[in-house]
Amino acid sequence: MAGYDYDLFVIGGGSGGVRAARVAAALGKRVGIAEEYRYGGTCVIRGCVPKKLYVYASQFPEHFADAAGYGWTVPQASFDWQTLVANKDREISRLEAIYRKNVQGAGGETFQSRAMLVDPHVVHLLGEDRTVTADQILIATGGRPAPHPALPGHEHCIFSNEAFDLKELPKAIMIEGGGYIAVEFANIFHGLGVDTTLVYRGKEILSRFDMDLRRMLHETMEKKGIRILCHAVSEWVRKRPDGRLDAVVTGGEVLTIDQVMLAIGRLPNTESMGLEGVGIELSKTGAIHVDKYSRTNIDNIWAIGDVTNRVQLTPVAIHEAMCFVETVFKGNPTAPDHDTIATAVFSQPEIGTVGLSEDEAIKRFSDIEVYRATFRPMRHTLSGRDEKMLMKLVVDGASKKVLGAHILGPDAGEMAQLLGIPLKAGLTKDDFDRTMAVHPTAAEELVTMYKPTYRVKDGERV
Amino acid sequence: MAGYDYDLFVIGGGSGGVRAARVAAALGKRVGIAEEYRYGGTCVIRGCVPKKLYVYASQFPEHFADAAGYGWTVPQASFDWQTLVANKDREISRLEAIYRKNVQGAGGETFQSRAMLVDPHVVHLLGEDRTVTADQILIATGGRPAPHPALPGHEHCIFSNEAFDLKELPKAIMIEGGGYIAVEFANIFHGLGVDTTLVYRGKEILSRFDMDLRRMLHETMEKKGIRILCHAVSEWVRKRPDGRLDAVVTGGEVLTIDQVMLAIGRLPNTESMGLEGVGIELSKTGAIHVDKYSRTNIDNIWAIGDVTNRVQLTPVAIHEAMCFVETVFKGNPTAPDHDTIATAVFSQPEIGTVGLSEDEAIKRFSDIEVYRATFRPMRHTLSGRDEKMLMKLVVDGASKKVLGAHILGPDAGEMAQLLGIPLKAGLTKDDFDRTMAVHPTAAEELVTMYKPTYRVKDGERV
Repeated sequence: MAGYDYDLFVIGGGSGGVRAARVAAALGKRVGIAEEYRYGGTCVIRGCVPKKLYVYASQFPEHFADAAGYGWTVPQASFDWQTLVANKDREISRLEAIYRKNVQGAGGETFQSRAMLVDPHVVHLLGEDRTVTADQILIATGGRPAPHPALPGHEHCIFSNEAFDLKELPKAIMIEGGGYIAVEFANIFHGLGVDTTLVYRGKEILSRFDMDLRRMLHETMEKKGIRILCHAVSEWVRKRPDGRLDAVVTGGEVLTIDQVMLAIGRLPNTESMGLEGVGIELSKTGAIHVDKYSRTNIDNIWAIGDVTNRVQLTPVAIHEAMCFVETVFKGNPTAPDHDTIATAVFSQPEIGTVGLSEDEAIKRFSDIEVYRATFRPMRHTLSGRDEKMLMKLVVDGASKKVLGAHILGPDAGEMAQLLGIPLKAGLTKDDFDRTMAVHPTAAEELVTMYKPTYRVKDGERV
Repeated sequence: MAGYDYDLFVIGGGSGGVRAARVAAALGKRVGIAEEYRYGGTCVIRGCVPKKLYVYASQFPEHFADAAGYGWTVPQASFDWQTLVANKDREISRLEAIYRKNVQGAGGETFQSRAMLVDPHVVHLLGEDRTVTADQILIATGGRPAPHPALPGHEHCIFSNEAFDLKELPKAIMIEGGGYIAVEFANIFHGLGVDTTLVYRGKEILSRFDMDLRRMLHETMEKKGIRILCHAVSEWVRKRPDGRLDAVVTGGEVLTIDQVMLAIGRLPNTESMGLEGVGIELSKTGAIHVDKYSRTNIDNIWAIGDVTNRVQLTPVAIHEAMCFVETVFKGNPTAPDHDTIATAVFSQPEIGTVGLSEDEAIKRFSDIEVYRATFRPMRHTLSGRDEKMLMKLVVDGASKKVLGAHILGPDAGEMAQLLGIPLKAGLTKDDFDRTMAVHPTAAEELVTMYKPTYRVKDGERV
């Protein structure tokens, strides 16, 4: 190994790549890492972090409105988009510096450059016009929003990347897509006062989530004033003489808006980096194909995170990074565990979910118990806000194992995180029932639903 | 049993009594229940429910202030105490009606009357000047704030009961006590703009909670502007000519305030209800002494909830009620389980806690691992609020069982509820580690603390 410049070279400075670089360096390995844009990757720079900050920003109008029922008189507040963008920028620059410093602090070397594979052990750093060699190479280049070249006028459209940094807040926006990115941005823009229309080709937003969550979030978003068109796509987008945009959607309706944001999927970043040259196998979608230890078809080249298109989540990329270091540098082959992953959608209200949806559970188990409660969160008893919370447990009738937990409402993401522990450990409904309630909380509902709302036997509700 | 008017007569219409009455009635038992004041008891009428509503009310000024970092300009808001009190009243009246209706709906008979035991099977209803007989009697009369007759000027002081319904919001208040009621009210009044001083005889607020939580909450409250005097008591309270109050505290300082609220403990409601006459044994503190099935020394008389002074929490009273019904009416003797009860303190920031404190764990286990993280909640990166969140896990080094989980920060109560499930089930730190993070949440910290912050072996930190 002494023959190479590095024991490990990482291509891509996002959550997965930085974690692998940092931990390997901390083990005393000679580590280099190259990032062409900004350290921190999708999550820090144009994903989770700025997204959640914008969610907070967009929630304030509801705080102002809810205060009245509690005795507060709040004069009309005003919002300045540029202040939000600038403050967000300051925060992500701070985080970016921490990411870079953490690698360096552990003894790794960071490069600000695009990197190309020249050979299984050779990386060319374009920004430095320099070539380095490494024993092991890890590709963690992430993904990007899928373009939509077939859409006439697609050149007028933006993606989530641009949405964070618009020069001006649009008066009206159309967002195309039904996944969590489309849904989260629809809520953000609506909360900030933008006239928002969500256009989705599928039958209901957020496919693969539990249908109760999907329907109830849809209804709640519409009640807030977000227009949602399902079974619809945009057919063309055109610039108007006044600088605004016209978009025609299925059925012929013309929407006049200031921005069209496309959130129709994400693609792995595998182009123009020499993968074909060294013979790395890709899947049909362009993702890097890896075995269960994250190894590509080339022995010393590995890949983790969104570029492998397994589960596109920051904590999964980090977990894969930790497993990679265990496998390669600690002599402890460890396959990432992608089973029973809790997730959140920072819609408004929020979704938190872990395990199987009811429909998925019905496919796999012949006797299902569903425990389901909807109620008004306590805060809204005085705020008067007409918004319900949903809690649902899906239980295997035979073993009583809790297969899925699904929440719509305030703090659902925090709840999903902690429900992840008992679900991952395979605890039963009896374990939930034995737990004393904490009053008054919303989560107490999850341990006090003693009787099934209904059962599903062999696919039939009984 | 047909010789009695009722199979069960319940004295006290709080959370425990109402639950027992409702569930027994739903089993077809002939049930009567008497409440002298308002159905719903401490929790609904002058405890958990109005308390949490007031907590929400008192948090709005922080929402208004935090908005600035997110681009919002919010003009000065104003607060009207009478509106809050009136809206709270409307909500608890609604809940009270539901409590009463639920008993009646199940077939139980509700009385609005004080009740006295005349004989083990005979209850006198004072309000109706009527006597009824019952096979089984359940006492669930709850508790009340302990008075402080030794304090000169105690007649000028109020208790939590009155605090909810003050005619005017005081400009300044002194609260005496260090338990959760004192701490919660201190935060409520401070949040509503009242100059607040907390006076507590002990060395640190919230005894029996984990010391890290106690210290960090204390510091955070002081940073907000709440004055906290520990090792101090009030020595006298005196009415001033201007109608305000002077209170002298240990050391001689005179506080000039508008209200003094005493929250120095709670007493069980066991007086003047005929308990001595029928020979029911009380403990030294006046609580009803019961066996593990909640049975008093009289065979057909039972007691649950705060009047037994076991664990004074609403969900515990409800749990005891359910166990009582199992034991007495379903032939399934069931002792309430008081082990590993999660609780919350709705201070600002909030406390959520379950299991053993570090100090308690050290007493019982020879090898303890402590995992501890403090961080700024994401919302406060842009709000600029200088407030940290604390997460702490106490783990048995030998078995890796998680013995205690302690949280200070937003949503700590919701988190404690769900941490109650794995802790009650005896899950290990490995079970926590195996759980994938949900990003970005605060709770993800609880499943990503991979290395102990420190260990304590045989009482020594190593």
